[in-house]
Amino acid sequence: MPVKNDKRTRILKAAVKVFAKRGFYQAKVTEIAKAAGVADGTIYLYFKSKDEILISIFDEEMEKFIGKIKAEVAGDANGLEKVRTFVRSHLSFVRQNPRLAQVFQVELRQSNKFIKEYSGSKLKEYLGLVAGYIEQGQQEGMIRPDVHAGLLKRVLFGALDEVATHWVLMKNGKYDLDESAEQIADIFLRGVAVARN
Amino acid sequence: MPVKNDKRTRILKAAVKVFAKRGFYQAKVTEIAKAAGVADGTIYLYFKSKDEILISIFDEEMEKFIGKIKAEVAGDANGLEKVRTFVRSHLSFVRQNPRLAQVFQVELRQSNKFIKEYSGSKLKEYLGLVAGYIEQGQQEGMIRPDVHAGLLKRVLFGALDEVATHWVLMKNGKYDLDESAEQIADIFLRGVAVARN
Repeated sequence: MPVKNDKRTRILKAAVKVFAKRGFYQAKVTEIAKAAGVADGTIYLYFKSKDEILISIFDEEMEKFIGKIKAEVAGDANGLEKVRTFVRSHLSFVRQNPRLAQVFQVELRQSNKFIKEYSGSKLKEYLGLVAGYIEQGQQEGMIRPDVHAGLLKRVLFGALDEVATHWVLMKNGKYDLDESAEQIADIFLRGVAVARN
Repeated sequence: MPVKNDKRTRILKAAVKVFAKRGFYQAKVTEIAKAAGVADGTIYLYFKSKDEILISIFDEEMEKFIGKIKAEVAGDANGLEKVRTFVRSHLSFVRQNPRLAQVFQVELRQSNKFIKEYSGSKLKEYLGLVAGYIEQGQQEGMIRPDVHAGLLKRVLFGALDEVATHWVLMKNGKYDLDESAEQIADIFLRGVAVARN
């Protein structure tokens, strides 16, 4: 018998598949239950609604991904390199998880609840990472002091997010996401760096 | 008696108000009709569905805005300056049209039809403008030849789009959008420019 927590994980995994395949609005809780191998009623023991499943997927995947990025930047020498690692990791996560990317880039955006009510704590934490790397780069004298970290975290996220969405909508074919990451990091870092003489 | 075309325009204007106030999903065609001062049935003479109204708003506003930007960059000396004008105009359009911004940045994204079926011809044309300015800058020797205009148009649009959405969701309070435009243009242009010696 799987423990309770396993069931929850199975439901979330199944929901990613169902949302990616059928779309969030079309997906039915009963389909998720079937894919997870649990009774319909079991789902409601863990989640109040389909929206709550979606938000849980987002929060838990973001939590894992935040941990992964923190570990990856640990070896970087300075804030500039951390920003570069962040850009690479963001797009390589998208490339390696096409189903999850479909759910995050397309389905999630269509949940009214997510857009209007989600507190966004995990997203804030994620954006906070980049802001921190930018500020570190400023303290190290490598990023210009007039660069506004609070704005720039959003600028960089928006750029990556748009490229990721386009990649998903193009059915993953048109882009080399790793190459895109190099160019985006390169341009962003040249843009914010203190001019070298 | 207003001519047919006036009715259509009135319906679209009323729809912007209703969508911005009530949200796209909650909005009812009958509310749009009331706000436009036409009978419910009249709306269906011009539009097949609520989604079609939304897409028409987008297409027509984009068409006007594309014309406006083309006129504005006409006086710019080179591709770099045209990119700067584009960034300024994008965010100043958002600032000057808060209701339309709410519809474009929030409501539009929740239309399944828009996300999955919209051919995006106006959006493509809009993105094509930036790509053209970047290519012009490359021909002028001011933008590095390794910069990928097809990727960069999306990077810049994504950045502006995210900042615009945040501004809308924050109820227009937190940002000075004009100042943000200057910083975004500055960083982007430093990032793509040929290094000066």
